[in-house]
Amino acid sequence: MTIRGNGLSDLGGSSGPTIGEAGEFALIDRITSAAPQPGPAVIVGLGDDAAVVAVPLGSVACSTDALVEGVHFRRDWSSAGDVGRKAVAVNLADIEAMGATGIGVVMAISAPKDLPMAWLDEFRDGVLAECADAGVALLGGDTTASPVLTVVGTALGDLDGRPPVTRAGAREGQQVAYAGRLGWAAAGLRALSRGFRSPRVVVEAQRRPEVPYGFGRRAAEAGASSLIDVSDGLLADLGHIASASQVAIELESSRFEIAEPLQAVAAATGGDPLQLVLTGGEDHALVGTFDDVPDGWTVIGTVVAGDAEVRVDGEVPEWPAGHDHFGGAESGRRGGGSR
Amino acid sequence: MTIRGNGLSDLGGSSGPTIGEAGEFALIDRITSAAPQPGPAVIVGLGDDAAVVAVPLGSVACSTDALVEGVHFRRDWSSAGDVGRKAVAVNLADIEAMGATGIGVVMAISAPKDLPMAWLDEFRDGVLAECADAGVALLGGDTTASPVLTVVGTALGDLDGRPPVTRAGAREGQQVAYAGRLGWAAAGLRALSRGFRSPRVVVEAQRRPEVPYGFGRRAAEAGASSLIDVSDGLLADLGHIASASQVAIELESSRFEIAEPLQAVAAATGGDPLQLVLTGGEDHALVGTFDDVPDGWTVIGTVVAGDAEVRVDGEVPEWPAGHDHFGGAESGRRGGGSR
Repeated sequence: MTIRGNGLSDLGGSSGPTIGEAGEFALIDRITSAAPQPGPAVIVGLGDDAAVVAVPLGSVACSTDALVEGVHFRRDWSSAGDVGRKAVAVNLADIEAMGATGIGVVMAISAPKDLPMAWLDEFRDGVLAECADAGVALLGGDTTASPVLTVVGTALGDLDGRPPVTRAGAREGQQVAYAGRLGWAAAGLRALSRGFRSPRVVVEAQRRPEVPYGFGRRAAEAGASSLIDVSDGLLADLGHIASASQVAIELESSRFEIAEPLQAVAAATGGDPLQLVLTGGEDHALVGTFDDVPDGWTVIGTVVAGDAEVRVDGEVPEWPAGHDHFGGAESGRRGGGSR
Repeated sequence: MTIRGNGLSDLGGSSGPTIGEAGEFALIDRITSAAPQPGPAVIVGLGDDAAVVAVPLGSVACSTDALVEGVHFRRDWSSAGDVGRKAVAVNLADIEAMGATGIGVVMAISAPKDLPMAWLDEFRDGVLAECADAGVALLGGDTTASPVLTVVGTALGDLDGRPPVTRAGAREGQQVAYAGRLGWAAAGLRALSRGFRSPRVVVEAQRRPEVPYGFGRRAAEAGASSLIDVSDGLLADLGHIASASQVAIELESSRFEIAEPLQAVAAATGGDPLQLVLTGGEDHALVGTFDDVPDGWTVIGTVVAGDAEVRVDGEVPEWPAGHDHFGGAESGRRGGGSR
């Protein structure tokens, strides 16, 4: 594809220029030139008005999430590659949480003109690395100027003919189980907030969630009746299942093994490590309800009849259920339709 | 769905509070409570991790576009309702440009804490009104804080079993035709930029594009070999078809009827009204190439062999082909994969 009059041939590959100096065309090329050839499910990929994907069995899951500099990431805490990975991962976690398999992502980047092109290169590498890990394609995107660096990903997933696993299917007597990590990102945030750069594993967990890819599909195949990804915190997100399903959820604290780095952070900062596990968000673990719990999932409680609430060892914890990006009234709920 | 502990019951419906005072939960509710029941293609709509839509014939088009305050809209020029409509329309135009029929949109809103809730209400009404006009559903979204009001929509479309109409299919000897409006938004922008609020029709066209919904599908059914929506300007966007198809495009200026309001703006501001038509972006007309031009499309030129360029009356115009949001080198190309 040739483009007339772009006047950018002197750009080269150095990390020197900003995106304002380079222009939108160069910015797009930096992203698209590195993208691998997508698989057969991608009928039209990068470079047209819209991407087109095949979903042979006829239903597609779609979710969108924004990452805003200063709200969801800090450039001094997270590398561009981390932000790129996170922008993909947080969206695919929502796809997993429907019991679907990710197909691809589109990515809208709004960036200040003085953003170094090198940041964009690393961001792109992170996007593509996470796409590769998850087995999905970068399908397209939009680039535009903004005073605030903002990355909005939207992911598509294929349900392979299965019904979606919503939040509303939990039934009395079922087991509650999770896959992935809980409290790691919150521990990392607490460490970073106090000026620490360690324990390294939790700091990295804050920068880059580790989504249990494929666990959503396997949960659906195993008959999961409800499923959600833990973006706001386990109590908050299980609260969504309890509300949508009109059930109560009983967790047993003894079921949680608290990893050593979380204990270290709690010891150093004076908190309760269980609070990190139960209220920490941004790890994007999956939690759901099952009659038969598949391999790789950890049972942490049961579904019981009663008011829509989440109890731990018989009590509703007094910790705040989740965080609210607007700093308004406490709320454990986010992202109508795609959180 | 009941939500515990949101503490927002005193909010009421007044336009007083800001979104920071109201919190994220109230913000989401303001959007979702007004959404109509979606049609049968929407298996899971608002309120779960991801939306799920049916595409019985197995392929889905997906496109994303960001609108940033100060870059794509100004709150003193556009009402919240206009921005909501535009956020839907610009994305559905890309879906039309694949020959697909819109199914729905997801919307990520990043907003400053002092944004009045009333703005959000009007924005939501605009989103829902445009969705209704286009016959699509609001499928979900994300809400978060940001110093800069940013709205990122992502649209899904159904190809109904047809192959997508890309930019790459134009063939020598075909006719070039468009549907929709050209130059109206640019005329409106020029008027607003000079402090005018009239002609009203072009000022409104700038605030709110009028996408020719259904024309993309009808073009595909009529055998369109290439199709694009005019977001950057006719010359720039036809340039993408010329490049992707490796053909030249010959336009005839006598084919364009220049509407009276465009002549008025050109006369008042000293420009050439044809330049508005050929280079003005943001109207989101559709332009494509055909053997047989369907009803409602206006023929403006032909596809010929030659270097990938767009000529008007035999010459490549010297006007800049399009605008570049980053203010870098001139470029007529935007939005890798979904513009």
